[in-house]
Amino acid sequence: MNQNLTVQEAEDHYQELKARGSQLDLTRGKPSSEQLDLSLDLENLPIGNFIEDGIDTRNYGELLGLEKMRQLGSEILGCKKEMVIAGGNSSLTLMAQYISNLFFQGSGEGPWSMHERNSVLCPVPGYDRHFALCDEFSINMIPIPLTGNGPDIEKAKSIVSNDPSVKGIWCVPKHSNPTGETYSKESIEGLLEIASQRKGFRIFWDNAYAVHDFKESAPLPNIFSLAKEKEMLESIIAFASTSKITFAGSGVSFMAMSEPNLDNFIKHYASMVIGPDKVNQSRHIKFFKNIEGLKNHMLKHAEILRPKFQLVDKWLSKQNFGSWTKPTGGYFVTFKSEPGLAKEIISLAKKAGLKLTPAGATFPYGVDPQDEIIRLAPTACTIEELEQAMQIFNACVALASVKKAASS
Amino acid sequence: MNQNLTVQEAEDHYQELKARGSQLDLTRGKPSSEQLDLSLDLENLPIGNFIEDGIDTRNYGELLGLEKMRQLGSEILGCKKEMVIAGGNSSLTLMAQYISNLFFQGSGEGPWSMHERNSVLCPVPGYDRHFALCDEFSINMIPIPLTGNGPDIEKAKSIVSNDPSVKGIWCVPKHSNPTGETYSKESIEGLLEIASQRKGFRIFWDNAYAVHDFKESAPLPNIFSLAKEKEMLESIIAFASTSKITFAGSGVSFMAMSEPNLDNFIKHYASMVIGPDKVNQSRHIKFFKNIEGLKNHMLKHAEILRPKFQLVDKWLSKQNFGSWTKPTGGYFVTFKSEPGLAKEIISLAKKAGLKLTPAGATFPYGVDPQDEIIRLAPTACTIEELEQAMQIFNACVALASVKKAASS
Repeated sequence: MNQNLTVQEAEDHYQELKARGSQLDLTRGKPSSEQLDLSLDLENLPIGNFIEDGIDTRNYGELLGLEKMRQLGSEILGCKKEMVIAGGNSSLTLMAQYISNLFFQGSGEGPWSMHERNSVLCPVPGYDRHFALCDEFSINMIPIPLTGNGPDIEKAKSIVSNDPSVKGIWCVPKHSNPTGETYSKESIEGLLEIASQRKGFRIFWDNAYAVHDFKESAPLPNIFSLAKEKEMLESIIAFASTSKITFAGSGVSFMAMSEPNLDNFIKHYASMVIGPDKVNQSRHIKFFKNIEGLKNHMLKHAEILRPKFQLVDKWLSKQNFGSWTKPTGGYFVTFKSEPGLAKEIISLAKKAGLKLTPAGATFPYGVDPQDEIIRLAPTACTIEELEQAMQIFNACVALASVKKAASS
Repeated sequence: MNQNLTVQEAEDHYQELKARGSQLDLTRGKPSSEQLDLSLDLENLPIGNFIEDGIDTRNYGELLGLEKMRQLGSEILGCKKEMVIAGGNSSLTLMAQYISNLFFQGSGEGPWSMHERNSVLCPVPGYDRHFALCDEFSINMIPIPLTGNGPDIEKAKSIVSNDPSVKGIWCVPKHSNPTGETYSKESIEGLLEIASQRKGFRIFWDNAYAVHDFKESAPLPNIFSLAKEKEMLESIIAFASTSKITFAGSGVSFMAMSEPNLDNFIKHYASMVIGPDKVNQSRHIKFFKNIEGLKNHMLKHAEILRPKFQLVDKWLSKQNFGSWTKPTGGYFVTFKSEPGLAKEIISLAKKAGLKLTPAGATFPYGVDPQDEIIRLAPTACTIEELEQAMQIFNACVALASVKKAASS
């Protein structure tokens, strides 16, 4: 695309693409059908006699999940099996159940419901569902910038030391949604230092992309090991799931916390849950066998995902506006336009038949103060659709950008 | 057993049974393996292409559940499909999620978290998990007696009119846990009248045994129809699940409420849940086909359950102490001892190798003021085990009773 594109040329190109009447969607971080097909054996493997460790998986019970599933979760998350709950199909539900526990039982300084204001730090851009959850539970959200290696620790420290209502932070530490960054050791140590200075502080460690590399990736330092050294294990509440490993809606979720925390949490959890779907956990145990099986399975996902991310990068590289991330795993590319253009680009795309995540969705309360962040989710569509979508996206970016340049 | 049994005779008989060193359990309302085997085709039926109504059941989405599953839920609960959420494996979790909504969004008079005291009426004896849930969410519980046809409505009216903190009532309206009673039309109308006099009042209608007759049973009047006549539909929040229909831990749960209530609830629900396990819902749809299929399936459960309940009744009839219920469905028999003996009988049973539900478990805060209610759950064990368990139970009742008579 020509750097000296005129507004008219950009407009003509956009209108030409718009006239195609496309119906394309880059909104959702969903696996494609091709990825889901990788796990067909989940259904096809014989389930046998429904007995795991002497337990009839069909009946009630086993609140914390099957032992082998807890083991697998502990290997994904990097902690002891005894710290892990293997739950139902959604780590988001586990997050909500833990937040509920904080409100009614608390994390050391009494139930959160007793306090007029409870705040959490939200590295931005971040995961919209973390923010929606906080919003529904009346938790005040304070955005802090991400640096490319995790949150801006100095800024976080300064906020926490000035605001006693801050009691936690949301983190997607590996292939962060949507920036793709992985937290450095320094970042993690900074977070633990912050936690050490506020009683009951909780690091919500949503390790959703723990095993989701599609290229060689920087390893995520083990927060549990670092926390143990500093005797800060109680500050970590970690989450993961197999949603983007097996079937997105029919996987197994995990939550991990220190054993004393788990002991405290169990009563609240038991009031809301009788036990997870153990037949489904058993399917997953039979399907993966062990963590090596799971890792080998992820290589197949990587083969499907890599070309899609390469294609996005190829298209973005063809044009001269904005900047974008080059993730080595996870589900998203973040495009940063000139300030003030994100809403317009997304609106142009919509009119041309390309759905994008709403502007601001990756910020607390839906407000991107610079109106510049656009999350692209290239996984769910086919390569052909992605090609068309990126062509439209580029045209929208170009039109919005040259218009802005012309008017300034 | 001899009515003129001496303490020594009762003691000898008890010791003789105790010496057997049995390991028996009548605590949990669980289906037996034989019952679980009725649903083996859930796993064996080919799942096909994972498409239901054009939706890939393996992927994310469909917050309210698959349409055919919502339809089945509506037929179990007796309401419109549009009022139903088909959820995960646990109606208890749906209850907790609804309670969470009450705390943060409320039911018309602001969020419950704003009020210093929130109370609900608890018909007793009742379901311990309703009480544990309230306890964890700091909801004050007020016991009211059951009459054999539902709660004591006059008493309930009087409490509600004197206590503005009362905002709801828990009900297990059919084959109530553990009394086995089914609510009469008059009871239901009384509840609706109470609801009409307190803004935001909620009837938590846990219809856990909606299709669980094992003998000819009185039908449960349709609360939705009665409520619609009185324009009180908004007061009903109904629950059900297939836990005691297919696999106890791997079933599908349902929640139903008026469409305006559902519209209000969806935002909170969506903050905690991405969507249910639709592959499992699809299995259930294929297994039952429709409500007739489900009802036919329940006849097979009835064949297994009926002899167990007959056996309990036969054994209890052999002795002369206390009184007991004669349920026509559900999972429990309630035995009422002489006042002050329940704890002792349960303790004697424990020493003789028979586990019973702890005394008081069927009351809020675990307190049975008369210490007389014992819940018997005869479903999980085999007929042979049940025979031995009831022999021990009778011996314990006899020993406690004759000792009391001798000391008075």
